[in-house]
Amino acid sequence: MDEVKIIEIKQSVFKNNDEQAAELRKELKDKGVFLLNLMSSPGAGKTTALKATINLLKDKLKIGVMEADIDSDVDAKKIAETGVKSIQLHTGGMCHLDAEMTRQGLSGLNTDDVELAVLENVGNLVCPAEFDTGASKNVMILSVPEGDDKPLKYPLMFSICDAVLINKTDVLPYFDFDVEKCKQYIYSRNPKAEIFLISAKNGDGIKEWSEWLYNEVQKWIG
Amino acid sequence: MDEVKIIEIKQSVFKNNDEQAAELRKELKDKGVFLLNLMSSPGAGKTTALKATINLLKDKLKIGVMEADIDSDVDAKKIAETGVKSIQLHTGGMCHLDAEMTRQGLSGLNTDDVELAVLENVGNLVCPAEFDTGASKNVMILSVPEGDDKPLKYPLMFSICDAVLINKTDVLPYFDFDVEKCKQYIYSRNPKAEIFLISAKNGDGIKEWSEWLYNEVQKWIG
Repeated sequence: MDEVKIIEIKQSVFKNNDEQAAELRKELKDKGVFLLNLMSSPGAGKTTALKATINLLKDKLKIGVMEADIDSDVDAKKIAETGVKSIQLHTGGMCHLDAEMTRQGLSGLNTDDVELAVLENVGNLVCPAEFDTGASKNVMILSVPEGDDKPLKYPLMFSICDAVLINKTDVLPYFDFDVEKCKQYIYSRNPKAEIFLISAKNGDGIKEWSEWLYNEVQKWIG
Repeated sequence: MDEVKIIEIKQSVFKNNDEQAAELRKELKDKGVFLLNLMSSPGAGKTTALKATINLLKDKLKIGVMEADIDSDVDAKKIAETGVKSIQLHTGGMCHLDAEMTRQGLSGLNTDDVELAVLENVGNLVCPAEFDTGASKNVMILSVPEGDDKPLKYPLMFSICDAVLINKTDVLPYFDFDVEKCKQYIYSRNPKAEIFLISAKNGDGIKEWSEWLYNEVQKWIG
């Protein structure tokens, strides 16, 4: 396999991240690029869910992926297996990406031939929620083994996400996870959240979630 | 059940956290209090593992627990069921505790009658690793559903921990998790790490890990 392209992200010098994010979002809109900011805890299944999503959408959309991590390039290599363009972003210890860091990543990715750009953010339910990346939509993954009470403990993350994917539903029989209770907790933080039950492993629900994403991309790029 | 005591932690004003942490550690040593800093991703099983540990040690050690979270008091209530003293710390959105914030928590807990004080840190594999809390020992939990590659992606957390508990071994049959490979990754980051395989759910390995902890407390409080 070809070597993965790795971008070492520099810390931002801008103080007003919200302004930077709004500007980036406008530029992307004008250029016809939809930016998906995908967040979760470590190990919730972002990369596996993304691979399954890409396999459904890659013939309909031009896709590019940025895999952000503190270290390693294992995720970018996994995404490269789908055949879409992927690069690895190293945050140098930083626990999140802000808009300017995302801009560095997009520049490394080169979005001239991309309609759907995906930022797989650093695995973390706290800090990424505090920084607008300039994304068109924020989506998070909560996995069944983490427990149904996470919306109570990490309220900001659930409140800023347009969609929540409840992943690893294949192992529901082995965990004490109440899907209805979890949905109620999510809606209490974010009444407008779209919730999808998925199993990235066996493919359940990937079609429904991918259709929602595809429609959102179409609305954005017109 | 009695109401849980909740402490709203204020952000630290001190610039040199390492100095604050060294000072706190010395004070705790002089006072005969062992401070365990317990870290993990959201949902790795910190509270459940802690309950099982407390049930084995509460007749041999005087224990007090600080449950740190951005919001909610569900964890402190669960710990209170064991009969040991527990309080909830609210970090006001902060993604970690530093030494001064830990000192605020210990003051709220009151350690006059405590030999083993436990800080259950905010669920996060990134930021808590960067801030010395003044703990006698750092311990982290990695759960099987998160995947065996996490030591590659979150190297600092694994390198600063004295012990790693690999939790949820009861679901090993349902996940693609290579225990030997994971151990190798951990040792590559931290050759001196103590590794325990546990299932907080069915009790496997809790005795071995609790014995290690008990011995460390004895060495500390003399």
